[in-house]
Amino acid sequence: MRYGRIKIYAGSTGKRFAKRMCAYLGQELGDADTIRFSDGNIFVRVNESIRDQDVYIVQPIAKDPNNEFTELLFWIDAFKRASANSVTAIIPYFGYAKGDKKDEPRVSIRGRVCADCIETVGVDRVVTMDLHSPQVQGFFSRPMDHLYGQSLLCAYARSLGIVNDDLVVVSPDAGFAKNARMFAAELGCDSAIGDKARAGHDENAKVLDIIGNVEGKNCLIVDDFTISGGTLADVAHGLKERGAKNIYAFLSHVVLSEKGVKRIEDSPIELLVSTDTVECPEAEKSSKIKLLSAAPLFARSVELIHDHHSISHVFSEDLTQRFLNCSFDPTETLDN
Amino acid sequence: MRYGRIKIYAGSTGKRFAKRMCAYLGQELGDADTIRFSDGNIFVRVNESIRDQDVYIVQPIAKDPNNEFTELLFWIDAFKRASANSVTAIIPYFGYAKGDKKDEPRVSIRGRVCADCIETVGVDRVVTMDLHSPQVQGFFSRPMDHLYGQSLLCAYARSLGIVNDDLVVVSPDAGFAKNARMFAAELGCDSAIGDKARAGHDENAKVLDIIGNVEGKNCLIVDDFTISGGTLADVAHGLKERGAKNIYAFLSHVVLSEKGVKRIEDSPIELLVSTDTVECPEAEKSSKIKLLSAAPLFARSVELIHDHHSISHVFSEDLTQRFLNCSFDPTETLDN
Amino acid sequence: MRYGRIKIYAGSTGKRFAKRMCAYLGQELGDADTIRFSDGNIFVRVNESIRDQDVYIVQPIAKDPNNEFTELLFWIDAFKRASANSVTAIIPYFGYAKGDKKDEPRVSIRGRVCADCIETVGVDRVVTMDLHSPQVQGFFSRPMDHLYGQSLLCAYARSLGIVNDDLVVVSPDAGFAKNARMFAAELGCDSAIGDKARAGHDENAKVLDIIGNVEGKNCLIVDDFTISGGTLADVAHGLKERGAKNIYAFLSHVVLSEKGVKRIEDSPIELLVSTDTVECPEAEKSSKIKLLSAAPLFARSVELIHDHHSISHVFSEDLTQRFLNCSFDPTETLDN
Amino acid sequence: MRYGRIKIYAGSTGKRFAKRMCAYLGQELGDADTIRFSDGNIFVRVNESIRDQDVYIVQPIAKDPNNEFTELLFWIDAFKRASANSVTAIIPYFGYAKGDKKDEPRVSIRGRVCADCIETVGVDRVVTMDLHSPQVQGFFSRPMDHLYGQSLLCAYARSLGIVNDDLVVVSPDAGFAKNARMFAAELGCDSAIGDKARAGHDENAKVLDIIGNVEGKNCLIVDDFTISGGTLADVAHGLKERGAKNIYAFLSHVVLSEKGVKRIEDSPIELLVSTDTVECPEAEKSSKIKLLSAAPLFARSVELIHDHHSISHVFSEDLTQRFLNCSFDPTETLDN
Amino acid sequence: MRYGRIKIYAGSTGKRFAKRMCAYLGQELGDADTIRFSDGNIFVRVNESIRDQDVYIVQPIAKDPNNEFTELLFWIDAFKRASANSVTAIIPYFGYAKGDKKDEPRVSIRGRVCADCIETVGVDRVVTMDLHSPQVQGFFSRPMDHLYGQSLLCAYARSLGIVNDDLVVVSPDAGFAKNARMFAAELGCDSAIGDKARAGHDENAKVLDIIGNVEGKNCLIVDDFTISGGTLADVAHGLKERGAKNIYAFLSHVVLSEKGVKRIEDSPIELLVSTDTVECPEAEKSSKIKLLSAAPLFARSVELIHDHHSISHVFSEDLTQRFLNCSFDPTETLDN
Amino acid sequence: MRYGRIKIYAGSTGKRFAKRMCAYLGQELGDADTIRFSDGNIFVRVNESIRDQDVYIVQPIAKDPNNEFTELLFWIDAFKRASANSVTAIIPYFGYAKGDKKDEPRVSIRGRVCADCIETVGVDRVVTMDLHSPQVQGFFSRPMDHLYGQSLLCAYARSLGIVNDDLVVVSPDAGFAKNARMFAAELGCDSAIGDKARAGHDENAKVLDIIGNVEGKNCLIVDDFTISGGTLADVAHGLKERGAKNIYAFLSHVVLSEKGVKRIEDSPIELLVSTDTVECPEAEKSSKIKLLSAAPLFARSVELIHDHHSISHVFSEDLTQRFLNCSFDPTETLDN
Repeated sequence: MRYGRIKIYAGSTGKRFAKRMCAYLGQELGDADTIRFSDGNIFVRVNESIRDQDVYIVQPIAKDPNNEFTELLFWIDAFKRASANSVTAIIPYFGYAKGDKKDEPRVSIRGRVCADCIETVGVDRVVTMDLHSPQVQGFFSRPMDHLYGQSLLCAYARSLGIVNDDLVVVSPDAGFAKNARMFAAELGCDSAIGDKARAGHDENAKVLDIIGNVEGKNCLIVDDFTISGGTLADVAHGLKERGAKNIYAFLSHVVLSEKGVKRIEDSPIELLVSTDTVECPEAEKSSKIKLLSAAPLFARSVELIHDHHSISHVFSEDLTQRFLNCSFDPTETLDN
Repeated sequence: MRYGRIKIYAGSTGKRFAKRMCAYLGQELGDADTIRFSDGNIFVRVNESIRDQDVYIVQPIAKDPNNEFTELLFWIDAFKRASANSVTAIIPYFGYAKGDKKDEPRVSIRGRVCADCIETVGVDRVVTMDLHSPQVQGFFSRPMDHLYGQSLLCAYARSLGIVNDDLVVVSPDAGFAKNARMFAAELGCDSAIGDKARAGHDENAKVLDIIGNVEGKNCLIVDDFTISGGTLADVAHGLKERGAKNIYAFLSHVVLSEKGVKRIEDSPIELLVSTDTVECPEAEKSSKIKLLSAAPLFARSVELIHDHHSISHVFSEDLTQRFLNCSFDPTETLDN
Repeated sequence: MRYGRIKIYAGSTGKRFAKRMCAYLGQELGDADTIRFSDGNIFVRVNESIRDQDVYIVQPIAKDPNNEFTELLFWIDAFKRASANSVTAIIPYFGYAKGDKKDEPRVSIRGRVCADCIETVGVDRVVTMDLHSPQVQGFFSRPMDHLYGQSLLCAYARSLGIVNDDLVVVSPDAGFAKNARMFAAELGCDSAIGDKARAGHDENAKVLDIIGNVEGKNCLIVDDFTISGGTLADVAHGLKERGAKNIYAFLSHVVLSEKGVKRIEDSPIELLVSTDTVECPEAEKSSKIKLLSAAPLFARSVELIHDHHSISHVFSEDLTQRFLNCSFDPTETLDN
Repeated sequence: MRYGRIKIYAGSTGKRFAKRMCAYLGQELGDADTIRFSDGNIFVRVNESIRDQDVYIVQPIAKDPNNEFTELLFWIDAFKRASANSVTAIIPYFGYAKGDKKDEPRVSIRGRVCADCIETVGVDRVVTMDLHSPQVQGFFSRPMDHLYGQSLLCAYARSLGIVNDDLVVVSPDAGFAKNARMFAAELGCDSAIGDKARAGHDENAKVLDIIGNVEGKNCLIVDDFTISGGTLADVAHGLKERGAKNIYAFLSHVVLSEKGVKRIEDSPIELLVSTDTVECPEAEKSSKIKLLSAAPLFARSVELIHDHHSISHVFSEDLTQRFLNCSFDPTETLDN
Repeated sequence: MRYGRIKIYAGSTGKRFAKRMCAYLGQELGDADTIRFSDGNIFVRVNESIRDQDVYIVQPIAKDPNNEFTELLFWIDAFKRASANSVTAIIPYFGYAKGDKKDEPRVSIRGRVCADCIETVGVDRVVTMDLHSPQVQGFFSRPMDHLYGQSLLCAYARSLGIVNDDLVVVSPDAGFAKNARMFAAELGCDSAIGDKARAGHDENAKVLDIIGNVEGKNCLIVDDFTISGGTLADVAHGLKERGAKNIYAFLSHVVLSEKGVKRIEDSPIELLVSTDTVECPEAEKSSKIKLLSAAPLFARSVELIHDHHSISHVFSEDLTQRFLNCSFDPTETLDN
Repeated sequence: MRYGRIKIYAGSTGKRFAKRMCAYLGQELGDADTIRFSDGNIFVRVNESIRDQDVYIVQPIAKDPNNEFTELLFWIDAFKRASANSVTAIIPYFGYAKGDKKDEPRVSIRGRVCADCIETVGVDRVVTMDLHSPQVQGFFSRPMDHLYGQSLLCAYARSLGIVNDDLVVVSPDAGFAKNARMFAAELGCDSAIGDKARAGHDENAKVLDIIGNVEGKNCLIVDDFTISGGTLADVAHGLKERGAKNIYAFLSHVVLSEKGVKRIEDSPIELLVSTDTVECPEAEKSSKIKLLSAAPLFARSVELIHDHHSISHVFSEDLTQRFLNCSFDPTETLDN
């Protein structure tokens, strides 16, 4: 049973991801425009009737987060006022999930601010992947479908032939230790933890120690995202000092600047694997970085949501393999 | 009767305006930081206890509107979670007030979106000046103090000695006709209206006609803001063609880019007068542009609000003159 | 594709308009009662199951606005508690849209108050026509379909044979200048503006001047509504003094009292054309007044909304002509 | 400890009651206007700054309930937007409390609708007296001070010398039986119950029976309000038929029309005693009707609320006597 | 027309009632678990996809009301976050409806607290039976279907052959007098009222008097519920003292403890008839107590709601008889 | 500057903790009652006027969480309806913070449900200690003061003389690794992590491994709470197997049953240190368990909140020492 067509629209930085989703689904991207005026104001407009349609709007909150967030609010409002039946925000990477607590006095819980605003303008559902902490789901009161990139990343690791007794999964710090354990469990490996003391908000922090044994092992560092590449490089150096062999980094999202890419390239990391949830042309050019597309995973999830089925089997081995086999043109440019 | 100290804080683009307000009030700007990380995320932090204080946060939504808007949300949330008694947003220029209606199908009413979000995070009051349309006050359900720049601008016009029977107040289009009438009434002049047909969203539109007589007259074009300078220049040319003598432009806000400043300089406009609600270094350098400070007007209003008095007499002649006499260092730089 | 039957109900002063809508759609008005007790309390009751239906309730907020507004709230609540799938309020004339701003201190923004209450009781959508200002759409956060009477009025003007180079469209004041420009554009005419100084809240205000040339021209005054007829009569006299020939007035809504009708009849206005959004028996009797029915426009729009289509083509020439050709019995009485 | 002055304002039908409250408190009524335009629209304006004041607005929802209710909403909005610290609605009689349940399918719960709207516009507290059912307090989520007229009415009954073993308190129907028991308990009397079958919404219903013994007794009928006087007259006839001696009626509120007053005068009721919560000039003229002022009770309650004291002792014998001793000019006219 | 399957789930104390509903409808109970951890925390989990389903969750708020209420909140949240199309709470007995007013200072209106929380977590509709007061419907703003047990109870009374001129319906106190009148009207009997003075919150109160004649009559006491059986026993004794013959008690709900059952058994009451809205094993064992199942009444109502029909005919004689003829195994145990 | 008296009230299981807070502050507990009726319904009543007071209500959500949670809702509602100026909920242990995410499909996020309900009834602020995850602060939109027990626990550890180079801080699992790092940093020790695989919801899970070196070391296991003692015992055994010397456990909260206490006593743990945030008489009797009082920490925080000061210095060494020196009678019984 199908309930009308899936209508996928894209915000200005979600275009390529949305097109890849559409390619998987065999359909066209919805017709809508974002205009940015010379005073910086954003204006959005849907160019076709979407009355009573179930609309999906793709927009990461990533490298230009405040413009992306504000634009997303305008999109949701435009769809609601245009009488959409429901509006689902597809946020492949939700960067403000990092602002998930008050860890010092008199700061904002930015993830909750974003969630409240997104719900205030009338979103009906959110689909996202690998939030910085799973509790951020509770910042939303509307339904959220939270996807996991782990099955994609693990399948790719296996395809590289590096998953064996010599591999140790390494969490770069104590905060990601629990997730690292889950990767290790899926891959059947041991795990270790980098023990970093972060001082203040500058992202320069020294790795003090590694808890667990890595000597003579290949190391697969896992994390949810990297911005500067600094922590990864530091951990990689630390691992090398402790006798590690080959070092890989597997991340859900990359938000790397050109400088960050350079830092990865100069580090002992052999290969960094991540997804295309954030458009990151700097990373795509690097021979040390491989970006898998998460768009098929999102596309199939949306299809199941749209048809009112459970989405849990999108993480099955078969589907994951099919997702990995999708190929998209990496040189595709944004024609906005 | 005073109710505790006024605590004024500034968002990243409200610093200079806030300092000018503080200078008028003879006090220091509150201690707080905005940090922008390399992934574009904004983080705000108040560096002193503000429990039970009445806090005023100064942030225009102007030339970088989405960053400014998002940062404002974070400030309000930070103050509320830090137990401020009340938070007043001072928005000297609220650029998204332009998005005040659905004038074509399937667009967002962006002013309402912003208002809803600002109220969702907990603002208690908003103070702003010369909204694009007065109805935008109704987009807020919390109290708003809406200031008018007209008294400042008219006082300055009088000080130039140009207000006499030879002067006609000109609205650049039908939409501003009502406001132009109010300027004309205060200055005791006749008025005329530019009759522009705007086609689509590109800001290039031809002035077709001028309703009213301007031949042999000095013309004072009034408007709430200019972004590209284009409409002003077009109207000025139109007035010249109809035999106007000297042409002046008096605006509430300037959001001019360098190109826009050039367009003004190349136009028949003798002098453009506006305020400093938006930081506009390009305009400040132009010998054809004079920016009055609206900070004393805001400062005195805040003082009256804080002491629970009516603010209506901030538009009196005496106070307006005192405001005009305040001098601030135009070369003051932003040391954020 | 049809989604169940359209169910149209009427509040006590929306009966005739609703019946005309039903006549256009070829269906019966829904069965429901309004009872007014001797203490003035209103009681509403739906006499048939409307579980999961999409309900349309027709009630202007016009000549008895507070009774009409309160009754509308009770209708919406009754429908929601009776498990309607959705409730659309059809408000042909929304009189409190005039209360759209704080133009003096310590007053209410009455349009927002009404919007908030209508949404609080659970309305899902509002359909209305020619709001006093388009920003009032932003007072609602639920979807609104805002219809325009201009196509009807212009078609009728054309049918009178008065649209030619001799015709000038006149705005009675600066506030309506922008709308007058749009009428002029559709009719291909020039425009002029009455320049009125309104003093206080008594509706007696002198027209001081006319901006633009009207000598020897036929004048078509446009406005959104008239209550006392005073402004129209004043403008008409002013136009005559300046040498105008025939004078017509085309308005979206008439809320005229008997005294107001007399004032129109005694004025230099040849013909006043408007719509039946407000039941105005006094106006219907006047030979100088012609009321077109807007009910077909609303009916067709509801039909499109109900079937989830875009409503933009209800303003096309073909449909407008068909609407104008509908005839309704003007002597039809209200049998409530 | 006093917290600033009490500021009492009045809606258009609350003027006399508010003035009596002010007389008790020895202060002037606040300066504010209600204007009703010729199209029925209401406009309210406060003529003095009330920033940070605790404002009390007096407006019954009584004989013109929809105008009164809508006007109350505008007052609350005007005070909130004018930065009142708090707004308390004094609703001496809340007529829509009768709409407190769904006793037939597809009707509105009008009391909840009114409560929701009053809270939506921002009221901080409500003070009222003798709601039709005490559960209506639960329709509000903000604090409500619910006053009781019973102490006033019982003290007056005692002052008439009719409270003795010969007196029976009679409830006109089963629905008021519980309250009648409370009156009987305070007066130390027996009670009886009229057993009425009400058919539909016409207010004509026959009294079928009286449960309890009334032969040879004086009867004091109690009820919360009367509109038509019909039920009271029917019960009085029923009592007479069963051998009752003198018959009195004591009510919290009277909302009588001229016809209703006549019905009381033609009935076997000796004396009807009530309060002035509703302006009822028809009742005031009748020699059979005595209206006590509840204004001192409200005034003293407001004083205690304002000073943050418990209000429970306003029902003490001493205070009740003092309230009864206040005299107000019954011929006082409304000079709005 | 059927709209998908009805999905019925049960909270931990609603299992048996829900199974009886399912038996009537010929379907299985939905698959879901409640887990109670050793620290008292409750955890709920739905074991099958319910995306876009209309879900009905059965949970009385009865003998363990706070656990039942909290569990209900978690169920609603779980269903909403799992993307149910709608969630209907079936609350056969809503015990906190007793907390429906502030009858002494500084207490909570607990019924409104529960209603607000149930709506905050996202319930779409509530179905319940015989609320303590009908006004509690107004504590909810979402649609509520309020069922009546009276038709079931009256039909059973008739089947006992006790309904004749010798029968008097007795309200145990003035508060239930109105409902007793409705029972009397349906059965065509006279009525009488127990006149109890309740002192404080202990449920021991003396019956002082009976209003109305009961000598030589069979008495059918009616009430909405009993907890301790105390009032019923007291009234029964009072009736016996006044010469009553056989005494029956017919109640909507029983919440009796073992001690309460004993009190009924030791009283002059011949037979107590009620329903199974509350699981009450103590009462089921008593030969003096007969519990009818209200589950068919709820099941048929849900069926009609689900198919979007009016539910009013569930109280018809035919259906009532069919409901009474349903038999369920009284020894059925809870296998949670 | 003092702002009126601090008014501290206690829910039924917060009495002892509240009394200890009052003892520290030198004042009496507020006068209020909780009544539990025989049907399980809870009723709360405040016995003194609290109009315009700032009220603090102490109630953990701990060993009887649903009764405690529901009672807390009623308290907040009672205080708000009784016109408290503000209501602060002191929740020393918030057990439902464990329900902070959707870690399997179709479950509730119970912490958010509780937060939403607590805010819906009107709480103004929450004070709590050591939430299961810091993100739970973001489930609340009102201000929260989140206290830390770490300073108390570390000071006590130091007073035992066990803090030296031989000590390793051990996290029982990866999820608490980050917190364990903070303890280790404050104590200047190394850290290790237990690597547990938890299967399903039964709390029996095997410790598979210990990451980090513990041989010959004293171990200080840290965690936020324990219910069954099972994980602690398992980790302790695992440490012993790896050659650890003395083993201590330091926890924020204990929610131990008698069986759990026994498990601790039978384990290799020398001493378990925690706080009195939960009343745990079973734990208090054990010679292996030492409960420090967190009441002085809360009391001093409330004092600072009440006087509008920053609370950060409650974690200073001086104050912590003073808190530890407070002595309370452990045999004090609850006289509710």
